[in-house]
Amino acid sequence: MNYKICIAYDGTNYGGWQIQPNRLTIQELLEEKLAILLKKPTKVTGSGRTDAGVHAMAQVANFHHEGPLFPKLFLRSMNALLPPDIRILSIDEVEDSFHARFSAKGKAYHYHLSLTPTILPFVRNFRYHPRGKLDIKKMTEAAPLFIGKHDFTSFANVGSSSENPIKTLRRLDLVQEGDDLILQFEGDGFLYKMVRNIVGALIQVGRGKLEPEEIKQILAAKDRTRASQAAPPQGLFLFRVEY
Amino acid sequence: MNYKICIAYDGTNYGGWQIQPNRLTIQELLEEKLAILLKKPTKVTGSGRTDAGVHAMAQVANFHHEGPLFPKLFLRSMNALLPPDIRILSIDEVEDSFHARFSAKGKAYHYHLSLTPTILPFVRNFRYHPRGKLDIKKMTEAAPLFIGKHDFTSFANVGSSSENPIKTLRRLDLVQEGDDLILQFEGDGFLYKMVRNIVGALIQVGRGKLEPEEIKQILAAKDRTRASQAAPPQGLFLFRVEY
Repeated sequence: MNYKICIAYDGTNYGGWQIQPNRLTIQELLEEKLAILLKKPTKVTGSGRTDAGVHAMAQVANFHHEGPLFPKLFLRSMNALLPPDIRILSIDEVEDSFHARFSAKGKAYHYHLSLTPTILPFVRNFRYHPRGKLDIKKMTEAAPLFIGKHDFTSFANVGSSSENPIKTLRRLDLVQEGDDLILQFEGDGFLYKMVRNIVGALIQVGRGKLEPEEIKQILAAKDRTRASQAAPPQGLFLFRVEY
Repeated sequence: MNYKICIAYDGTNYGGWQIQPNRLTIQELLEEKLAILLKKPTKVTGSGRTDAGVHAMAQVANFHHEGPLFPKLFLRSMNALLPPDIRILSIDEVEDSFHARFSAKGKAYHYHLSLTPTILPFVRNFRYHPRGKLDIKKMTEAAPLFIGKHDFTSFANVGSSSENPIKTLRRLDLVQEGDDLILQFEGDGFLYKMVRNIVGALIQVGRGKLEPEEIKQILAAKDRTRASQAAPPQGLFLFRVEY
């Protein structure tokens, strides 16, 4: 049987989602605890990787297991085995053909900026606190330039497999919520570090160091060396995976 | 000159506010960093202590220093010296007679309960996640029993100095905000662990294990052994100190 799980994690203390040598990852811990619970090695497939320090409100993964699993008991057991910075929120039996990565139709990411004069200790691992004042109006005006079907090469870091750089960004809204400015992204797919690179560019716009017109030029250049520095990982949340 | 500072802290990794042997405290760190910045030993007086694991949105303290301090420079320097789980939010020169503890006219505490089926990793150090379902209507009905002038001996832990156990609780509101239930306390003063003991009792009311009528009896008994277990520290925030 094929099971789909939804996972929330605080990525602060991990080397990201995907198993790698030398750093503890979310995928590795999930597979380790599943092996204990199911009494045999079990591979977990995620919807995609998240980088070191990046969080997930609802990462999705699937794994195969012969025999029934009782949701309440499974959640209670796994969450007892896992450290408190990783929680499995739900488990559902799905069709055999379901694949967390290949079945995904889109994703939503939220990037949180803190606008308080001093960043509060409680959110220090979950917000980016940019220096100086940001012109949010200018950022909001520039955001639509990224929406639509574009070759996002200029906003992708090298590091992912040779993927098609043409992606459709369906939504990019700037939402103020209390002391946070949340940049909400929705699209069919995202290149490596694409969200953080776009946020980096929008912050430069907010600082008056980049004009909206230049964003068009950078996109057209299809050249990573043209774009701004990526925003740091701690503000980023994988918010939803669509199937 | 006498300076009043306002401090926010994540109490997770500290033995509380007040200097004590064997555990690192907020007061100790503040005094250590002030000594570096001001180049001489400087005593910091807080509005009152907070326990290990308890947080502050706005603790208030004062210290004396000969000579002027430039607020922006002071904040930048101190926040650079302090770890990111302690932030000084403001500094103001005050009258010589100001004393963070004795001048305080009242305090507000907020206790945060998380009502999600599974507690999210991002709030695990800042919310208490009680098992089972709570009857919030019952809790809201019972809360006013604590309001007013009472001898709170039954809801105070031994450990504070021989203080007058008669306190006036001016406000106790239960506010639902997103997935949180926030118990908001305002009063002229609070005995040792009084807020957490009252929260503990209200949780028992929410579970149907304690009737509102019994709260009256427990208050009247003036006997600590009669009350429920204290709610754990991580849900509690010192929210405001009034002068």
